[in-house]
Order: sequence, then C-alpha cells, then structure tokens
Amino acid sequence: MSKFFDALETRSADQRADDLAKLLPLQIGAAQALSGNARLDGFDASMIQSKEGLAQLPVLRKSDLMGMQERDYLGGLVTATPQQVFQSPGPIYEPGYKDRDWWGFGRFLHALGIGAGDIVQNCFAYHFTPAGMMFENGAEAVGASVFPAGTGQTELQARAAADLGVTVYAGTPDYLKVILEAADAASLDLSKIKAAAVSGGPLFPQLRDYYTDRGITCRQCYATADLGHIAYESEAMDGMIVDEKVLVEIVRPGTGDPVPDGEVGEVVVTTLKPEYPLIRFATGDLSAVLPGQSPCGRTNTRVVGWRGRADQATKVKGMFVRPEQVADFVGRHHDIQKCRVEVSHDGSTDVMVLKLETTSDQDFTDSIRDVFKLRASVEKCDIGSLPNDGLVIADLREI
Amino acid sequence: MSKFFDALETRSADQRADDLAKLLPLQIGAAQALSGNARLDGFDASMIQSKEGLAQLPVLRKSDLMGMQERDYLGGLVTATPQQVFQSPGPIYEPGYKDRDWWGFGRFLHALGIGAGDIVQNCFAYHFTPAGMMFENGAEAVGASVFPAGTGQTELQARAAADLGVTVYAGTPDYLKVILEAADAASLDLSKIKAAAVSGGPLFPQLRDYYTDRGITCRQCYATADLGHIAYESEAMDGMIVDEKVLVEIVRPGTGDPVPDGEVGEVVVTTLKPEYPLIRFATGDLSAVLPGQSPCGRTNTRVVGWRGRADQATKVKGMFVRPEQVADFVGRHHDIQKCRVEVSHDGSTDVMVLKLETTSDQDFTDSIRDVFKLRASVEKCDIGSLPNDGLVIADLREI
Repeated sequence: MSKFFDALETRSADQRADDLAKLLPLQIGAAQALSGNARLDGFDASMIQSKEGLAQLPVLRKSDLMGMQERDYLGGLVTATPQQVFQSPGPIYEPGYKDRDWWGFGRFLHALGIGAGDIVQNCFAYHFTPAGMMFENGAEAVGASVFPAGTGQTELQARAAADLGVTVYAGTPDYLKVILEAADAASLDLSKIKAAAVSGGPLFPQLRDYYTDRGITCRQCYATADLGHIAYESEAMDGMIVDEKVLVEIVRPGTGDPVPDGEVGEVVVTTLKPEYPLIRFATGDLSAVLPGQSPCGRTNTRVVGWRGRADQATKVKGMFVRPEQVADFVGRHHDIQKCRVEVSHDGSTDVMVLKLETTSDQDFTDSIRDVFKLRASVEKCDIGSLPNDGLVIADLREI
Repeated sequence: MSKFFDALETRSADQRADDLAKLLPLQIGAAQALSGNARLDGFDASMIQSKEGLAQLPVLRKSDLMGMQERDYLGGLVTATPQQVFQSPGPIYEPGYKDRDWWGFGRFLHALGIGAGDIVQNCFAYHFTPAGMMFENGAEAVGASVFPAGTGQTELQARAAADLGVTVYAGTPDYLKVILEAADAASLDLSKIKAAAVSGGPLFPQLRDYYTDRGITCRQCYATADLGHIAYESEAMDGMIVDEKVLVEIVRPGTGDPVPDGEVGEVVVTTLKPEYPLIRFATGDLSAVLPGQSPCGRTNTRVVGWRGRADQATKVKGMFVRPEQVADFVGRHHDIQKCRVEVSHDGSTDVMVLKLETTSDQDFTDSIRDVFKLRASVEKCDIGSLPNDGLVIADLREI
C-alpha cells in the first residue's frame, strides 16, 4: 500500500499553483451558473486563478443557507441531482453523492493505514445528518468493510466488534472508550481494534493517551456536514493537513478578509467538487494556518486544530453586537489595524469597550454610535498587542 | 421508462428453464467450495439444473447460522469480502455488497414507478440491521435520491418531507401514517408523496385504503435480512412476484420437501447472487405458491403474502415437540399423506392429538413414543381434509 492516497498529496508548490489556476476558474464558472450564487455575478471567473484572486469574492455564510433553501431546492447550489440528501439541525439540508471518495474521508482513512481487510465499526449516525454516510463512502474508497453501527446499543456494539473482529473504530472521540469499557465488563476481546478515526467533538490528550495505551492509534479530522472532509492528522501529528478537494482560507471573523498565516480567524472553505461547488463558505469555526510543511511529505497547507466558534454575536444592553458590525467599523477607519470588542458587566449594566490597535488620535464616538447604536469606551493599544484568538467580540460576563 | 426493470421479468418458461439450467450448477458449485457448506458435499452440482434437482439438497436453517458464525467469519458462506456487514437480533450477521441493485429492491421500486426525479424518504433503520441499506441500494439502482431518515423524530421527518418535496416513502407499513398525521398537525403539505414502498410488518387493508385515499399508492414486498428482496407486489395486485435473483420453494415445515402448488408451507430460498450463495435457506416464514401468471406480464412464480411463522416448536408436558419430529414420524410411515399435531389442555394436563391423513389400519402408538417421547392419541382423517395453513403443530392452548 502506497503511503499516500494519491499523487495530489505530494505536489510541488508550483504544480499546486498550476493545477489551481486551471481548476478554480472552472469551478467558479460552474458556481456562477447556479441560481443560488447571485452574489458571484459580475466577477470574471477566468481571472480567479489563485487564493489571492478568490479572496475578492464575497463569502457565503452558513446562516444564509436556510433562507436560500426555503426559496430554492438545496439553495440552488447543486449542479447535479444528489443521490442522497440530509437534514441537519436548523433545518439545513445537504446534498450527497456516491462517487469514489466524494466526501474525502478515504484520504483520512488511508493516512491512518486503513484499507482492504479492515472492518470499520462506523459509529456515526446514518440518519438525518451525513456523518455516517461520509465515513461509509470513505471506507468504501479504501476497500474496507463497514459495520454501520450508529450510536447507542453499546452492549450490542461491543458484541459485534468482538464477533466480527473489528479493526477500526470511526465515531466521536469519546464513544470508543464507552464501547471498550462495555467489552471489558462483558469479557469480550476487542484487541483487534488498532485504529480510531474520530471527529465531531474535542479529543482531549488524556483520551488519546488512553487509546494509545490500549494499542489504538487515534487520529482526528475536521469536517462539516456541508463541506465534507476539510483537514486531517497524519502520522506526523503536526497540525492538520488540508484535504485536496477543498481550499481553506482563514479570515477575520465577520469579513472575507484573509488574516496573515498563523493568526486565528474564521475557516472559509471553497470546495473543488463539481456537483456542489461551494465558493468561500464561511464555516463559523476558528482555526489558523500552521506555517511550513508537514514532515510526513504531504505538501498541502496545514491548519491548527479547532479553536472555537467564530459566531461571536452577543447582546449588549439588549442590542445585538455582531462581528460584521466590528468589520464595518474597522472598514471606516483605515488607521485601525485590529479591533476587539470586550463586553463586561459592572454590577448594574453592560459595559462595552473597543480595544483598538491604532496610532490614530481620532475620536471614534460618533462612528461607534452609527455602527453599533450603542455607547462604548475606547482603549487604544499597541500594534500587535491584542490576543491571537480569533475573537473580535469577547464576552467577559459571567454566565 | 420501460414498464419492466429488465428483460428477466418477462422471460418465457423455456427461457427461464434454460437460464436456470446454466446458472444453478455454477451457483451450487461455488457454494460447495465454501467451508460453511459441508452439508452439500457429495452432490454433483453439474446435475442440479432445475428446482426439482435442487429439492434433493438439504436445507440450511436460519437457526443453524448462529453456531456456524461462531466458528467461522459469516459462517464460511461468502465468496467475496463484504463491503458491509450487519448485525440482526440473535446476534446473526449478514454480509452486504454495493453492486447495482445487489439486494434486489430496485426491481420492486421500479415496478412502483420510482426513478430519476423521485426523492425517497427511507424510514428503514440503517444501523445494525440491513433494511435501510437495502432500500438505499435499490433507490440508487433506479436513480432516485434518498433522504436517509431512519425511524423516529417524527416532527423532523414531516418537516423534511415537506421541505424536500419527498415523493416516495419507504418503511414499515404503519409509520407513514404517523408522519402524515404529524404533518397535518403542523400544517405541512406532503401531497407530493405519491407512493409508499413498505415491508417488515403487516399491511392491513384499511391502512392501504387510508393511503389510497390520500393519493398514495402503497405496495409491499417480502424480504429478509439474509436474503434481501424475495417477492413484490406489482400493479396487478395479484399475489407477490418472486424476484429474479432468488428461487423460491415452499416446503413442508420441518422438512425440505416441496409441497404441491397452492399448499401453505415454509418459504425456502436459494439466492443467485454470486457473493453470498445461500442454497435452500429455510426462512421460517409461511407462504404458498399462487398458481398461474401475473396479468402484469411478469412471468416469474407468484406467492401469496406472508402466512405466519413456520417455527412451530412448542412444549407439551415440558417436552419440546418440533416440526422436524413430525417430519421424522411421517417419514417412517409411507401410508401417511399428512400429519398435524394438535396440542390442547384439558384443565389438568396437556393433550396431544396426531391428526393423520391416511387410509392405513396400523397402530402408531410405539412409533409416536419413539419419535416424540410422549403419548398422543391418533385421529385418522380423509385425504385432503386437514386445513391448508402450513401448520404441522397447532397449539390450541389459551396463552
């Protein structure tokens, strides 16, 4: 078995740039032809051949999808009738296709050493949401058998894992431990399980250590219901490598503006799957680019793990304050490098402070009232002094 | 769209016989090469070219599978590594494959008029048991989209059906009514649902009428977790037509002996799928051949709907009485045409009566004690007078 899933993983930077310059205009052109992408009207797809070009396009927020889907089947965003369609909380609907590794999880599973001869106990749900089918599709791509288990019925899960000689667990990080403990209690031997492919929740180091102590290599990937597989851990265990079917940008929350490498911001993803060309889809998740390349030999961009949610809208004195407003405010003042809104409570009322990286002497009071419809005090800070945590609105009130 | 799923459905009797004469020896030969089929040793596969030849082979009972699977992965009964594996209560495990219409449900869905443009809400469970994947595989074969819904979360099911414009329900017969009523209560419009493909439970006429009144054509198929699709209703609504990937025999319960057409007996199925060649698999279900051909033009054998379970083992005075014992008893006396054991209770003890279709004057007392280890009285009856209900053991005690 080759170490790599395909030749895409080890492309040189030049080859990547060339491939992207060919693919991106086609993908954007296909997206422009869809009724749901009016926001892309007026851009010349043929000129968008790189991430820099892509950054000119407006983002699409997950929160916009619901309204679009009420007007149009799947928001008018698919180029082909889906073979499957899913419902996630909202409700928001996602299309699915069954082409080889359409969702991208085969790449993750291959990097984890999974292939023919393996039996994967897939403990992601197959009902309503797409996670189960995503891993099903990935396991098929690497030639492994799947036991579609879903969640729950833990004693039966343990029994099946023992009876079938399951070698791989797929599911949320914590549920394998529950199964292993149920097996221990029932004196069932699950020692054939050698790997755990996890996602959909935090993987704490002590849990990973627990699995390692039982001889199980546990690695995680980052994925969403709309986008499928986005990034994965390899044997290098040094950040998460971006999937080859997506482009990842990290932007300042509330904007579409890329932040410098290393800075925490919102994950914005463009898919290269022809059937569902999502262009600059803002996930609401926070991460950062990890500079440099993975020592495992895969050359794609790396990101750090999930750093929380970018959806920082909060209420101050009963009024919503949203990242988009912070972006609007900063956009009005070119001498502000960065702005962080801190919300606290002084015992009787909410207090809003705008911390600004700026050298300007300007008074921002009117501008603040215009944008936020609220009063706030201003604290000017040195350039580069605000924390790199992706927060443009920090809510410091006790809950 | 052609009326028929493929040309197999309308073959002439001669063509069917020719095809079977070629296929059956190959399938039995492949089965004989598997470690789980020692019971087929010594038979010359090349000579088994018809149902009559097939009837010489011993049956495989579902109840035998569990022990076989404890010794051997999937009982040593598969010729290819399965792409999926399922666990049904027992536990018993079933293999699954993803080839086009591997499970056979595409044929049923096609006969129901389902194809490209349809959206199927699949309310069979995808977890553990194979029913969900069976219908998923069938819907893919006819080019329909699937919303993998599973069971439960009825309000969300209704919402999804309305939002997606679902056209087809697949699931147990009763659950669609629950969804429709939830939709009514929430003022959701599910009028695009035009068809219901049901299985896995009784479909009462008044329930079918309820669906018809709402403009929904409801048809049922007969299937099991081990065998997949076995028989289906067509637009003729005249019995159930046997699937083209299986052979169906009706045998006297407890034996492998075919009964005359029209007589109720146990359904024994031989699959023609190369990956999982089950030869004379006794389902434990009761049905009967419906003589003649369907007016819809499909030429395969028809069966009547499900007539109950053949598993009639019962306890008399604390001792098990099984259909196999009845068969053993009849086998000892060639002048007995048919035997029915009736068990009742006289207020103080169990009473066992053997009703025999026979013209013999013989005293069967010793033979009964040898076979059953119990005393029983004998009632001799006219030939053809016992009920045609598939029961060889009728338990008349109040529960």
